[in-house]
Amino acid sequence: MKVFKEIPGSIIAPKGFRASGVFCDIKKLGTGKGSNKGQKRDLALIVSETPATVAGMFTTNQVCAAPVKICVERVKKFGRAQVVVVNSGNANACTGKQGLADAREMVSFTERAFNFPAGSALVGSTGRIGVTMPMDNIRAGIIEAAIELGSTTEHADHAAEAIMTSDSRSKQIAIEFKLGGKTVRIGGICKGAGMIQPGMSATGARPAALPHGGLHATMLSFITTDAAIDAKVLQTALNEAVAHSFNRITVDGDMSTNDTVLVLANGLAENSEFGIRSAEFKKFQAALNHVALELAKKIVRDGEGVHRVVTVRVNGAKTIQDADAAARAVANSALVKTSWHGGDPNWGRIIDAIGYSPAKVVEEKIDIGYSAVAEPAFAKSASARQEKILWSLKRGQPTPATFKELCAAVAPKEFELHINLNLGQANAVMYAADLTEAYVDYNKGDVTDPTTLGG
Amino acid sequence: MKVFKEIPGSIIAPKGFRASGVFCDIKKLGTGKGSNKGQKRDLALIVSETPATVAGMFTTNQVCAAPVKICVERVKKFGRAQVVVVNSGNANACTGKQGLADAREMVSFTERAFNFPAGSALVGSTGRIGVTMPMDNIRAGIIEAAIELGSTTEHADHAAEAIMTSDSRSKQIAIEFKLGGKTVRIGGICKGAGMIQPGMSATGARPAALPHGGLHATMLSFITTDAAIDAKVLQTALNEAVAHSFNRITVDGDMSTNDTVLVLANGLAENSEFGIRSAEFKKFQAALNHVALELAKKIVRDGEGVHRVVTVRVNGAKTIQDADAAARAVANSALVKTSWHGGDPNWGRIIDAIGYSPAKVVEEKIDIGYSAVAEPAFAKSASARQEKILWSLKRGQPTPATFKELCAAVAPKEFELHINLNLGQANAVMYAADLTEAYVDYNKGDVTDPTTLGG
Repeated sequence: MKVFKEIPGSIIAPKGFRASGVFCDIKKLGTGKGSNKGQKRDLALIVSETPATVAGMFTTNQVCAAPVKICVERVKKFGRAQVVVVNSGNANACTGKQGLADAREMVSFTERAFNFPAGSALVGSTGRIGVTMPMDNIRAGIIEAAIELGSTTEHADHAAEAIMTSDSRSKQIAIEFKLGGKTVRIGGICKGAGMIQPGMSATGARPAALPHGGLHATMLSFITTDAAIDAKVLQTALNEAVAHSFNRITVDGDMSTNDTVLVLANGLAENSEFGIRSAEFKKFQAALNHVALELAKKIVRDGEGVHRVVTVRVNGAKTIQDADAAARAVANSALVKTSWHGGDPNWGRIIDAIGYSPAKVVEEKIDIGYSAVAEPAFAKSASARQEKILWSLKRGQPTPATFKELCAAVAPKEFELHINLNLGQANAVMYAADLTEAYVDYNKGDVTDPTTLGG
Repeated sequence: MKVFKEIPGSIIAPKGFRASGVFCDIKKLGTGKGSNKGQKRDLALIVSETPATVAGMFTTNQVCAAPVKICVERVKKFGRAQVVVVNSGNANACTGKQGLADAREMVSFTERAFNFPAGSALVGSTGRIGVTMPMDNIRAGIIEAAIELGSTTEHADHAAEAIMTSDSRSKQIAIEFKLGGKTVRIGGICKGAGMIQPGMSATGARPAALPHGGLHATMLSFITTDAAIDAKVLQTALNEAVAHSFNRITVDGDMSTNDTVLVLANGLAENSEFGIRSAEFKKFQAALNHVALELAKKIVRDGEGVHRVVTVRVNGAKTIQDADAAARAVANSALVKTSWHGGDPNWGRIIDAIGYSPAKVVEEKIDIGYSAVAEPAFAKSASARQEKILWSLKRGQPTPATFKELCAAVAPKEFELHINLNLGQANAVMYAADLTEAYVDYNKGDVTDPTTLGG
């Protein structure tokens, strides 16, 4: 596992990208407009100097928001884009024909604002479900955001803030690496918090291989790179990166109507283009994986009410589907998640969840243990990792590990849970959150103030 | 829907049954023994004067407790029993060969205590997972419980209390009806609280038709009847009754290692035996359905931290599997359950859960609405029911119903949620609980006191 050098600036770090984030009162709080009025920004623009190749991954929820439909269509049809417009405060989901017309107006208004050809813009939305978009505010916001565009870290900060909903902090990363002698950068921003268990595919359609129930936040992520890369090659890399990052996280097991990851690659790093069998692809893939996984983990750490983050590793399943099913059952069990919150090394609840999962398991073969979060160096070898595990259960039976020792293992804010099914060679990992009173309190909302009731 | 006359006495109401519940310190709190020492009773006996036919339904969790294994084996092999021994405080799950030997000792010790032939006893356990049974206490408890046996409502109360874990109150019912000119009675007790989404089958094996994820408390229920009924006919009736009651409830979506329903029928009502094509069977089935459903609903109402109980009705699905999958996705969604707790009529979260469920759905066809809990008379006609619904969404679009009206519809402690998929004729119902801070607080446990950390 290569460790990449992190640099500041997230989405504006790669050459030729500019960003902005403004307040245009999308929730119609009526508390004044303008990004300098102390209101939370709610509209972002990300713009490339030159047309970029593009790849996307989208929610497989059958109830899918209008902006997702527009992006699925455009990424497939054009494979290129130059600007992304994103709003928070309104998901434009379950808004029928009007919603679809509004999403189309968002992209075409943005294209006209920049005098870009039709097909140059993509769109993302997050917020309440079932409320029609305030298009006057949106149009005013797009114009203001276009004026505010720039390429300082502050501009990236503003864009990252503008896409937040219940997030407590913005989520950004950028890295730099060498590709074919050229310096290439990848930067990204994302948002999450609740309704988080993404299950995305490139077309929004469910692949047959995706397990039932393994599909579930609104999470949005926008990634920029100055790499020169063909759209199809970029999509291949994004499929793989999302499969090992955003599609492996869960806060509450609910999959949103709006989950979207978009990557824009404008080629300004001037590397030679590469195919999927090349050494360059392998390097680019590793870099994109790193960006996607770090962003995905930031979403879990900042999930609604989250106190602890647990990496659930299931090893030794008969099939990948079994490994995934067991990991998701544990990662989404209300009883397991509340025990993590309480710092309770309750293996009974864990083996219970494994047992009711669709995975084929044999009680007498199951091992359950804990370790500190794997540092990159330590993660190099699976056997080295196994050596550092404090086992609570071996072959279905409690080990001599004491309750005090086990409590210490689950006390850190982040730890790893290792489950060996000892039935085969297939593995899966989930990055999961605990379930806290704060999550419940936040999500029960306040019916005296409907604006707090999120979609 | 026939309304049955309820009578007192639960499991001792049918002729020839006696019961008891005593304290034998199964959690080894060391705070003194004896049922009259003010401690919570933790061991129950249910005994029939004469050998009874028996039927059972058991958890389909692949991690399955020793008492479940014993019962699956005995119900199949003998189809008859005369005594059931049940303990709380220890689930005897994940206890390996010792656990299985202990469960066998529980039945054989009980048989010897009554001088019953081998194969006459059944056993149930609930409580912590992974702790070996305190057999000295168990044996002492069985002897004391045998001495305490009686057939007053107080005896039934003691047995119902002895099987409780996190339950706040005991759960009992008995009804009386005429069968072939004879007065027949069915009585039952149960316990639930957490780890509640049973998915039981007669053999503990998963039927192919049972949907993935549709399998999940420890719930125990023991039902007695003085009906004369063949064991196979009784099992047929129990399969049907459980399918529409215990297997349709969820508190937290976690299926236990110990879920068990047992019915003992001793024939002392002296009705003529009947086959499954007879009018008598239909009547017996309706009566057993009533007992099972009323007990199942008591479990949801008394679930850990539960404030609101919601009947989720999915109608118009293409297949039963789809109807079931959509109902379970909604009933187990953390975001939907927290909105119920908050009294928030948030249809966005509901349609989101429907959309990510494995069920085939079309956003533009989905209706979502609310009604008061159907009274038996009102429930007679599906069309009458539909008339009383306040719709929040019709064909995927918000109705003119006001936020205030919708808030009023979800304010009661119990209400019905109606989802019409408008794609076919298949229906499913789930009896679900909200998700509250109290649930989280209870289940995060107290690691300074390991005896509070339930399995």
